[in-house]
Parts: sequence; structure tokens; C-alpha cells
Amino acid sequence: MDNFEFFNPVKVIFGKDQLSKLPSHIPAKSKVLMIYGGGSIFKNGVYTQLKENLKNYHIVEFGGVEPNPRYETAMKAVAVIKAQKIDFLLAVGGGSVIDATKFIAAAALFEEGDPWDILSKQSPVKSALPLGVLLTLPATGSEMNTNSVMTREETHEKLAFASTKVFPQFSFLLPDAAGSLPQRQAANGVVDAFIHVIEQYLTYPVNAPLQDRFAESILQTLVEEGPKVYANPADYEAMSNIMWSATMALNGLISCGVPGDWSVHSIGHELTALHEIDHARTLAIVLPGLWTVLKNEKKEKLLQYGQRVWNVTEGTDDERITKTINQTESFFNSLGLKTKLSDYGVGVETIDKIVDRFEKRGWKAIGDRQLITPTVIRAVLMHQLK
Amino acid sequence: MDNFEFFNPVKVIFGKDQLSKLPSHIPAKSKVLMIYGGGSIFKNGVYTQLKENLKNYHIVEFGGVEPNPRYETAMKAVAVIKAQKIDFLLAVGGGSVIDATKFIAAAALFEEGDPWDILSKQSPVKSALPLGVLLTLPATGSEMNTNSVMTREETHEKLAFASTKVFPQFSFLLPDAAGSLPQRQAANGVVDAFIHVIEQYLTYPVNAPLQDRFAESILQTLVEEGPKVYANPADYEAMSNIMWSATMALNGLISCGVPGDWSVHSIGHELTALHEIDHARTLAIVLPGLWTVLKNEKKEKLLQYGQRVWNVTEGTDDERITKTINQTESFFNSLGLKTKLSDYGVGVETIDKIVDRFEKRGWKAIGDRQLITPTVIRAVLMHQLK
Repeated sequence: MDNFEFFNPVKVIFGKDQLSKLPSHIPAKSKVLMIYGGGSIFKNGVYTQLKENLKNYHIVEFGGVEPNPRYETAMKAVAVIKAQKIDFLLAVGGGSVIDATKFIAAAALFEEGDPWDILSKQSPVKSALPLGVLLTLPATGSEMNTNSVMTREETHEKLAFASTKVFPQFSFLLPDAAGSLPQRQAANGVVDAFIHVIEQYLTYPVNAPLQDRFAESILQTLVEEGPKVYANPADYEAMSNIMWSATMALNGLISCGVPGDWSVHSIGHELTALHEIDHARTLAIVLPGLWTVLKNEKKEKLLQYGQRVWNVTEGTDDERITKTINQTESFFNSLGLKTKLSDYGVGVETIDKIVDRFEKRGWKAIGDRQLITPTVIRAVLMHQLK
Repeated sequence: MDNFEFFNPVKVIFGKDQLSKLPSHIPAKSKVLMIYGGGSIFKNGVYTQLKENLKNYHIVEFGGVEPNPRYETAMKAVAVIKAQKIDFLLAVGGGSVIDATKFIAAAALFEEGDPWDILSKQSPVKSALPLGVLLTLPATGSEMNTNSVMTREETHEKLAFASTKVFPQFSFLLPDAAGSLPQRQAANGVVDAFIHVIEQYLTYPVNAPLQDRFAESILQTLVEEGPKVYANPADYEAMSNIMWSATMALNGLISCGVPGDWSVHSIGHELTALHEIDHARTLAIVLPGLWTVLKNEKKEKLLQYGQRVWNVTEGTDDERITKTINQTESFFNSLGLKTKLSDYGVGVETIDKIVDRFEKRGWKAIGDRQLITPTVIRAVLMHQLK
């Protein structure tokens, strides 16, 4: 395996009836901005529990964070923070709310220019407001990492930043709150976590058997428990297993000492930016195409993955790989995620536009070995056209 | 799965040629006590690299920490700390050195009575000196947890404590330094890590499939890579995989939301306290006996473990369990660890003494469901007599 560094100081509090512990994690007398999304917290019981447990704090509410959270919305929260002298941020929701909260935490204290630079120029984050998380939707792993992805409405750009300054101080993981999710969101979360693992695992072998097996452990658990939460998000035990899997999928652990790829995300982000397709769905579209086009380059790991996760052991290498890709695509389909661009009304003109964007950015190639050129991106998307 | 909390802020720096990063992790102008064991650091190159990289620090050396580190020795280090106004501790070695350093860190600032109370009365540790680790021997996981086990020479007692105050601030994991270990120590490390996993995994099912698979991932990797480091500790890649496995075996992760047992350790500690048998060897003696005596109580997990780790799938449940226990014992034997008390010149009078100790402490029973009474302990040890 390669050299690596690992550091993750997020305190995780997992399970039910845990919110009475909340005050021990937020400094007394904090002025707290409670940041949330479309209002599911009023339906899943979290809002009431939260108000009850935080009655000794001054709480300001900021709702309305979008899926694919907007830079423009985040900057409104920054204005509230400055006006009201907020000193602690509490993200209540899923990955979008947490990502927005991380950006808000950094932007509120950013003094080196326009906060947009944090995303567009990767300006270093020197300080950030402290933040905590109440997770109600398993998917992105944002509750236990340094990452944030934001979208600028004005320019249809979707950009990411990462900083240890925006590690949540704590994350309460609440599988019972996730029980009231719509099936669609539960399924999106399973596929999002699945492809997070894939991006860190399905590259090329570097003799890191423990990391490989940890990754496969998460994939197997998502395959086994995913259909249960899709059928019934209120299945507490299955949702618990999905939630812990999604957190472990992107907290820095399985990437220790191994290469990462992340090209499925890079391509998928463009589909969201241009067509507002759910993040997880864009990944489910791109992955089968990418594997088909790069099946020789990713051969060893595709065979290992097929055998260990899908028990594909018969046939020639090529047959096994084809079967493995089909099994994966069928798994996404079985959770209600369609995997062809035509399913979303997207045509070849979007492919042109995406390839053009990559070329204009001057990125020659992406992926674990920089093999994915704009030409390869075109082939990947063409494969998934219909 | 059960509710849980997880918190582990140790920064891990893994691999080769990493020690130039050391100064960035120790506050400038610290007065550092470098704590080590029997002198292997002079043979494995670490001492030279360390002196080179820490030349801007005031370093005081404290060597001679024993395997099964002594309370008496630790208290000598505490005296040095007080006399020399040490403000940072650097443990260089394996689990014994790290465990001793944790106790020393706590004892140096303990003002509520005799530091022995930290072990004997579990007196809470309110503060501790900061400490860092250079790990040269994979085994105990102490480099990434809060645990310490100390032995009092005078009374032949072996006792443990744990406190988040003694989390290492950083741990450099050095597989190349471990390359100069004797085969015996390399093998002990593999078995120690193996049984750490077993204590957190082989209990009873609580529907925690990810935790089960993570545990099995570590076991499979130890089974696969263990014979390689036993044959050749200088096999850098195999040692890297063993080292990361041993760290992951006991850093709090695989125990999240699942029951623990730890009775193999409780019984094994007595064999070390009375006969100075290597820690890992005591565990290898106790485990097969414990599983044989408790095969009905641990049936479900024994069958799952046998199938997933040893591919034991044929026969009646009882036959599969017997085969699984035999495979495990053979694995220990293949690494040079003998598993019968007679192999160590220990007879039935020691069994009487151990049972008597448990009875005198007033512990009615130990283990995941408090099933292991002194009578059961006698049966376990009698099974391993010869």
C-alpha cells in the first residue's frame, strides 16, 4: 500500500433517543444557527426534540437549503450570522444541508476576498465557525468528513472544497429520523454511498487487502440492506445499517493508502449542473458507461469486485466483467434509479456541452491514472445515451 | 445494532520515510521524554532517524520498559519527568512501551492520591501529559486507542485503565522498523491482533452486518498476511498490511454498536501475571478452550466465522464448529504459538490459583453475557491442560 495520513476527530453519536446528549456538545451560551432544508425536520420529529433539548440556548433558524445547495442561499445565511453574531452552526438534515453548513462556516470568517474563491480558486480556509450535525438522511458521508460541494445558480457551476477546519465537532446519526424519508431519497442515498466506495476501490491493485475488504464490506452491506430501506425506509435496523455504511463510505478510512478515481463524480456533477438530475442518479448513469469503456484498464479490480460482491465466478474475464457491470446497473434499476440519459430527457447536445466544458477548463484527463480524456468522457456518456 | 458513540482523534502517519514530518507534530521547544524498551530502536534505525529529526528539541531518554510493562519502572519515569520538567512524551516501540507511556502521562499529573489507584481503583484520569507514538511492532493497537495494561511486579497483578486523556496525539506507523523484529514477536503480534478482533466479534448476533464484515476483513487479512511476516518480518508489504490490520483491530471502530466479550484477555492476563507467558501466547492458549466449552452459547457466530474466514461449510453444526476451532488453533500453531498449558510447564495448580483469584475478587462471571463463572474458567483451562 502507499504511504498515507489519516485523521478524523468527528465524534459520532449513533442511534435512538440520543438527543438529550446534545447540550453536552454545544458550549453553553452559544448563539446557534440551526440550518435545515425543505422542512422534513418538522415531519420526522427532530425539530420538536431539538427545541426541547436546546431550550437553554439562543437559537436562530435558517431553513430552505436546497438539494444541490446554492452558494446564493449560503451567503444569505452568512449575512444572518454577521447580523446576529452567531457562534455555533447546527446542520439538521442530509448531505446538502451539511455541505452548505460547512461552506457557511468557512465563508462567515473568510477575510481574504470573495468567499466564492473558496470554491472557484480553492483559497485555503484559515478558520471556520464550529459546527455540529444531526443527520437525518444517509448518503453523502458529509457528517464525518471535510468535504463540501456547492452549486452557483447564476453560472450553473457545481464546485467542491475540503478543509479540516470544517470537520463537524459532532454528528448525531439518527436512523429513526431517516425512517420518514421518501423511498426515492432512501434509494438515492444507498446508490450515492455505493459509488463513493467504488471511487476509492475500483481503481487498480496496490496490495492493500484490508482496504479492499473494508470497501467490499460496505458494498455487500449496501447490496443486502439497500432493498430493505427502499421497500420500507422505516425499517429501523436496515436504515441503521445503511446509515453507518454511508458514513464509513466517505470518512477517509477506506481511501487510506490506495488510489482514488472520482471521475464518475466529476462527470456526474455536470449532469446535475445542467439538468438538475439528482446527484446519485447522475452517478448511476455514468458508472456503467465508464466501466464499459475502461474495462481493460480496470480489469483486475472489476474481476475482484464481481467475484466478491456479486459472486460472478464463471466465464471468460470479458464475460465476467460484462456480467458484473450488468449486475451493478440492475441493482441501481431495482432501487428505482434509471441509468440511461434518455430516461431523463437528456440528448446528445448535452454530451457536446459537457465535453466542451471539460475542454475549456483545460483538464487534459481525469481519473485514477489520468486516462479519462474529453474523448473518453464522450464515449462514456454516448454509451449511456439510451 | 446497539446505540454507540465513536471518537478517535489520533492522527496516523503511515509508511516509510515519514519521520521528517515529526517536528510538525511536537510543539517547538518541548522538553521531550523519549520512552523505549529493550533497545531494538538502536537496531532498526529509528533511534538515528529520530535524533536527526528532533535535533532542535531537548530530548531526555528513558529506556528499559519491559514486555508486560512494570508499574515500578513507569514510576521511575514519572520521577524523571518531575525532576526534569518534561512536557511531551514520545513512545518509541510496541504496545508495552505505548501502554507504559500512557500510564506515565496520567501518573505524572495525578494529584488525587497514589497513581496506582488509576489501575487498582479505576480513579478517573483528569489530565495527562501529551504523548506521541512511533510504532515499531504491530500487535496491541495501543497506538490508536485509550487503553493501557500495566503489571505490578511486587504483587504479580496485571491491571488495565482507559482514558481519552491518553489518546496519542499522533502515531507514526513504521512497517520498515518492524522488519527487524524476531519471528517470535512478529507472530505474537499477528495473534494478538487476531484475538482483539475475536473479542469484539465472536459474541452473539445483533444485526450489525457492516461491523461483522469489518471484523472478518481484519481476520482474513491476518490469516493471509500473517504467515508471510512470520516467515520474513522484513517483507515490507506484508508487514504494512499486518500493521494496519493490528491498528484497526482495536481502535474502537469494529466494536461500534456490538457487544464485546474480553474474557479471553481476562483469563490470559492471569497466565502472564503468574508465569510471564507472552501476552499473545496466553490468548492462543485460552481461546480454543473457551470456544469448546461455550460452543452452544457462541454457536451462531462460530458458524458464521467458520464459513467466512475458514470456508467451513460442510457437516453438521457441531462438526463445523469443531473444525473451525481446530483450524483456528492450527493457525496459531503454524505461527509457532503453542496452545497447551503443558507446553509452558503450567499444571493444574496454576488453574486452581487462577480460579481462586477470580473468586476472591468477587467477580461472579465475565464475558459478553456474564456466562463465564470461575467454574467455567476452570473447565476452559482444564481443556487446554495438555
